[in-house]
Amino acid sequence: MLASDPGVLETPAVQWSSGVLRTVREPLALEEPLALEIAYARGGTAVRRLIATTMRTPGADEDLAAGFLFAEGLIAERGDVVSFAAAERNSRGEAIATLTATLRAAPRENLERVSRSLLTSSACGLCGRPSLEGLRASAVTAGGARWQAEVLSALPERLRDAQPLFAATGGSHGAGLATAAGEIAFVREDVGRHNAVDKVVGAALAQGSPPFGGHALVLSGRASFELVQKAAAAGIPVIVAVGAPSSLALRLATEAGQTLLGFTRDGRFTLYTGAARLDGHGTA
Amino acid sequence: MLASDPGVLETPAVQWSSGVLRTVREPLALEEPLALEIAYARGGTAVRRLIATTMRTPGADEDLAAGFLFAEGLIAERGDVVSFAAAERNSRGEAIATLTATLRAAPRENLERVSRSLLTSSACGLCGRPSLEGLRASAVTAGGARWQAEVLSALPERLRDAQPLFAATGGSHGAGLATAAGEIAFVREDVGRHNAVDKVVGAALAQGSPPFGGHALVLSGRASFELVQKAAAAGIPVIVAVGAPSSLALRLATEAGQTLLGFTRDGRFTLYTGAARLDGHGTA
Repeated sequence: MLASDPGVLETPAVQWSSGVLRTVREPLALEEPLALEIAYARGGTAVRRLIATTMRTPGADEDLAAGFLFAEGLIAERGDVVSFAAAERNSRGEAIATLTATLRAAPRENLERVSRSLLTSSACGLCGRPSLEGLRASAVTAGGARWQAEVLSALPERLRDAQPLFAATGGSHGAGLATAAGEIAFVREDVGRHNAVDKVVGAALAQGSPPFGGHALVLSGRASFELVQKAAAAGIPVIVAVGAPSSLALRLATEAGQTLLGFTRDGRFTLYTGAARLDGHGTA
Repeated sequence: MLASDPGVLETPAVQWSSGVLRTVREPLALEEPLALEIAYARGGTAVRRLIATTMRTPGADEDLAAGFLFAEGLIAERGDVVSFAAAERNSRGEAIATLTATLRAAPRENLERVSRSLLTSSACGLCGRPSLEGLRASAVTAGGARWQAEVLSALPERLRDAQPLFAATGGSHGAGLATAAGEIAFVREDVGRHNAVDKVVGAALAQGSPPFGGHALVLSGRASFELVQKAAAAGIPVIVAVGAPSSLALRLATEAGQTLLGFTRDGRFTLYTGAARLDGHGTA
């Protein structure tokens, strides 16, 4: 492992190119399990509970935990977490890296609902919820900052310039929060794109309180439903994806009143919904 | 929606390129929730149970269900499913597309373990398992078919040629099972890469029984831990990814005795482990 970068593991490998072999050392993005637990007091009794186990790239674990707990509605702001404690075993005694968030109070959200929402094979924000109406797409405000198309079109390249793990490995996703001036204010990387978004929202939560109405979420990959949902929960009005959106991502962004851009690369993008926030293109 | 392709939704959009706007119709990959339930009899009592809710591209739902149930150890072969039934509500009465697999017998795997393994934020095959040793990387046999480097290097392009959803939308993942002769025997697409792998394994299960020792799993994206695990559980000895592997994917592939290729594109690849299966490169 490179001492300078906790997210990278260097490994021997063989490169094959048109019949020619070459021995190399290849940097891989680290992927390791993390158990996330919460602790709080209810009626004088100490409660500790496993919330999720995820495969993630080590680093910014507290951001990941804060962003995840926020996305799931278990905290409303970073201050709802009194402290984080890292351990090498979970509360069941199993040997797995564990981060425990001690909460100021018992979570308001129904934990059973959260558990059901997590009972899923692949990242899924809808799980167990009967309809889109039940989602926490609460905080996106109409109006707010105006966005220049030129600025938006350049955000993925700016994000990539701020992704050392991707530069080293080509095997990680990035998520950034950008201002309307085109500055990437926060950036986080992870082997999992959902983790990358949780981490960057968690990083923003450490600096301020949602809704993050002045920021665009920049995604190094596609815009799936769950990523749009995480942005909506954080009150982020603009989503700029390098890749394509899915049908449900578009539906949610439209219902939440967000601006959604896909295929943002090579000096162009496709605008799917929310044209009113774009300067000079409000009638497109 | 295009009547000809159930996986695509056509939507109006605006393309922006260097200040020029153009109204277009864009095909999006469909993403919709599916609840997966199993039904079986235990001691004369009918049991019906929600196993997972996932966001997937509609189509090949039975393959998805079979592959997922197999990956989770709830069935050993397709014949363990007596029948599939699709409905518009789950067993709780919630309005969500639901597929119920009626099993020949109560599953041998501990359902609690499966539920714990699914209690995760993003796709995670390790969840709740204390170590890699507990994994079902059982069936990969040493030896078997020999693979030509030239054949392997061409597989991602052949997979892409067999991905109509990606060709239409640019927003889906593909998974294929290829023979050592370079034929793509099975291919499936989905907005979720884990779903694409479950679907293609499910498709193979409909034609035969695992282990699938004569096939390589071809991935349109990166090789994460969970995708390698699904391949290992199905006894697939070779994994060919267009993108990078993660550190844990490499570790599992090494422990399972698999051959793992990444960055397989533009006439080259990087071999991370399992060189012995490559013809002429056994000593690399």
